[in-house]
Amino acid sequence: PGQPGPTGVGNPTSTYRNIDALQKETYRTAEGTMVYVTDKSEVYIRVPQGWRKVLLGELIPFPSEIPPPPAASG
Amino acid sequence: PGQPGPTGVGNPTSTYRNIDALQKETYRTAEGTMVYVTDKSEVYIRVPQGWRKVLLGELIPFPSEIPPPPAASG
Amino acid sequence: PGQPGPTGVGNPTSTYRNIDALQKETYRTAEGTMVYVTDKSEVYIRVPQGWRKVLLGELIPFPSEIPPPPAASG
Repeated sequence: PGQPGPTGVGNPTSTYRNIDALQKETYRTAEGTMVYVTDKSEVYIRVPQGWRKVLLGELIPFPSEIPPPPAASG
Repeated sequence: PGQPGPTGVGNPTSTYRNIDALQKETYRTAEGTMVYVTDKSEVYIRVPQGWRKVLLGELIPFPSEIPPPPAASG
Repeated sequence: PGQPGPTGVGNPTSTYRNIDALQKETYRTAEGTMVYVTDKSEVYIRVPQGWRKVLLGELIPFPSEIPPPPAASG
């Protein structure tokens, strides 16, 4: 599976840097597997013929009033 | 992760009551994480700028001929 | 959950042969669960009233230059 996320929540889908990295895994990935491609910020699902894009809609931007966590130090 | 589902099947995505609850987790959630927001019955994916909605199409309603499970008693 | 994939990567969503098989599980499946239906190559999410289809877009076909794995022998 993809890189582990920060000590946070949720189950990050498998993550790939780009489509090339994803394509190399095609034959080793089960149909129905959902993945995330970071350089496009897009989600794909493995289908018999390859990968299909999951259509995404509006963006809910960061909550401005919630400050980002302090930068990890040390 | 979200609340455990009934003793059933599948891997429920992380579930949040509403967008406010989701927003509070934004900085603790890895990019590529998919979540479900119950008060909207909608799915979102964590992207670098915040959350993007997964577009959903037609509804397949409950199978009328399959009776719901008996209410848990005792 | 669905059938285990090949020894590969990713976290296959729960997989069902067709909508009938999916419908039989409706009452045992938590809201927010995402599933894949193989005979349609489509993704559905469990919502309060039943199942909603996840809209899929363009297909990225198999990488022609990457040969499929050798057929398992013996």
